Amino acid sequence: MASRGFFVVFEGGDGVGKTTQIERLAELLRSEAGGSHDVVTTREPGGTDLGRELRQVIMHGGHVAPRAEALLYAADRAHHVESLVRPALEAGSVVVQDRYFDSSIVYQGGARGLGDEVERISLWATEGLLPDLTVVLDMEPASGRLERELDRVERETSVHASQMRQGFLKLAARAPGRYVVINAAHSIDEVFADVAAAVTDAMSRAGEGGAP
Amino acid sequence: MASRGFFVVFEGGDGVGKTTQIERLAELLRSEAGGSHDVVTTREPGGTDLGRELRQVIMHGGHVAPRAEALLYAADRAHHVESLVRPALEAGSVVVQDRYFDSSIVYQGGARGLGDEVERISLWATEGLLPDLTVVLDMEPASGRLERELDRVERETSVHASQMRQGFLKLAARAPGRYVVINAAHSIDEVFADVAAAVTDAMSRAGEGGAP
Repeated sequence: MASRGFFVVFEGGDGVGKTTQIERLAELLRSEAGGSHDVVTTREPGGTDLGRELRQVIMHGGHVAPRAEALLYAADRAHHVESLVRPALEAGSVVVQDRYFDSSIVYQGGARGLGDEVERISLWATEGLLPDLTVVLDMEPASGRLERELDRVERETSVHASQMRQGFLKLAARAPGRYVVINAAHSIDEVFADVAAAVTDAMSRAGEGGAP
Repeated sequence: MASRGFFVVFEGGDGVGKTTQIERLAELLRSEAGGSHDVVTTREPGGTDLGRELRQVIMHGGHVAPRAEALLYAADRAHHVESLVRPALEAGSVVVQDRYFDSSIVYQGGARGLGDEVERISLWATEGLLPDLTVVLDMEPASGRLERELDRVERETSVHASQMRQGFLKLAARAPGRYVVINAAHSIDEVFADVAAAVTDAMSRAGEGGAP
C-alpha cells in the first residue's frame, strides 16, 4: 500500500459508552485542532448492506447453531473489511470502528466455548487486518451500584458480563503495544480525555514511524 | 452415538443429474426391496430455513466478497448439520444429500483461489462429520455434443466446468474408500444401476463392520 490511514477499534461490554466516545473522537479528528482528518465511523456487525441483512438473519428469532453464528459474524467481517474498511484505509482515512474481532473471540470463542478457531477464522476473513489501536472501554459490571440483593437472572448476567470483561482485558494484555485500556466508569468527559490522548499519541507515533 | 444411520452425498457439476438420481435412490431405499429405510433427502445450500435465507443473501445481486461467500456457505453447513443431518443420522436414518463440502472445496477453494482454508473451515463447521459415501457423478463438459464452434462465453464456461470436474476427481482419488465415481454420460437407468449398486454395497459393508 502506498498510503495508509489509521484503524482504531473500540471494544468493551454493552453500555460502557462506545457509541458516545466514537462520535466524539470522530468529531475531534475531523476538526482543525484534531488534524482535519478524513474519518469513517463504522460498526460490526452491520456496517454494510450485506451485514445488515446478516444481522437480520442472526437476530431472526429461531435457533442458530453456535458455529453457524460465529461463521455469520466472520462473513459480515470479511465483506465489511473488503468493501469498506480496507479501501478507506488505503485512501488514507482514519477508520473508527465499533467492535471487531476481539468481540467474536470473547463472545463466540469464550462464552460459547468455540475456542481459538474463532480467532483463526476472523484472521482469514480479514486477510490478517489488525487495528493500529484497540481501545478497551473497561468497567466493572454493575459493581457496588446496587444495595439490594441481585435476583438469579441479574446474578447470571453479572457473571456473564464479568467473564466478557476479563476476556477483553486478557486480549489487551497479550499485545499491550496495540491496546489501551481506559476506565469507563468515570464521567464521559474524563473518559474522552483519556481516549483522545491515547488515540492522538498512537497516531503521531504511527506517523513518525510509518512509511512515507 | 448408540445407533448410526448412513450418510451419502452426491457431488458433481451442474446438469449431471444429481436431483434425479437422489430421488430414485431415496425411492429404492424406502421400498421393501431396498431395505425399508427411513430416508431423509436434503441439500446444501438451503436445506434449512436459515439456509434458505442465506441463499437469498448470497444471490441478492450485489457484490459479495469471496471470503464472505465461503463463510456464508460454511454457516449454512454448520446449521444444517447441527439441526438436520446429525439428528437424522443419530435416529438411524439414511441421509441422501445434494452437495456437501467437496463443492465448497472445488468452487470456493479451487475456482475462487481460497485454498485449503475452505476445507478446514468446513471441517470445523461440521465438527468433522464426513459422509460414509460420496457419489461423484462424472461427465465430460459438453464433450463431443456440439459440432459448431463454441463462442467465447461457452469456451470459458467449458474450461470452468472442466476445472470443476478435475477438482471432484482429485478429491475422490484422495480417499477412494469413501468415494465412488460414476460415469454420468450414460442413460439415467444405466447411471442409476451403478448408483444403486455402489450405495447398497457400501451400506452393507458399513452394516457388517459397524458397531451393534
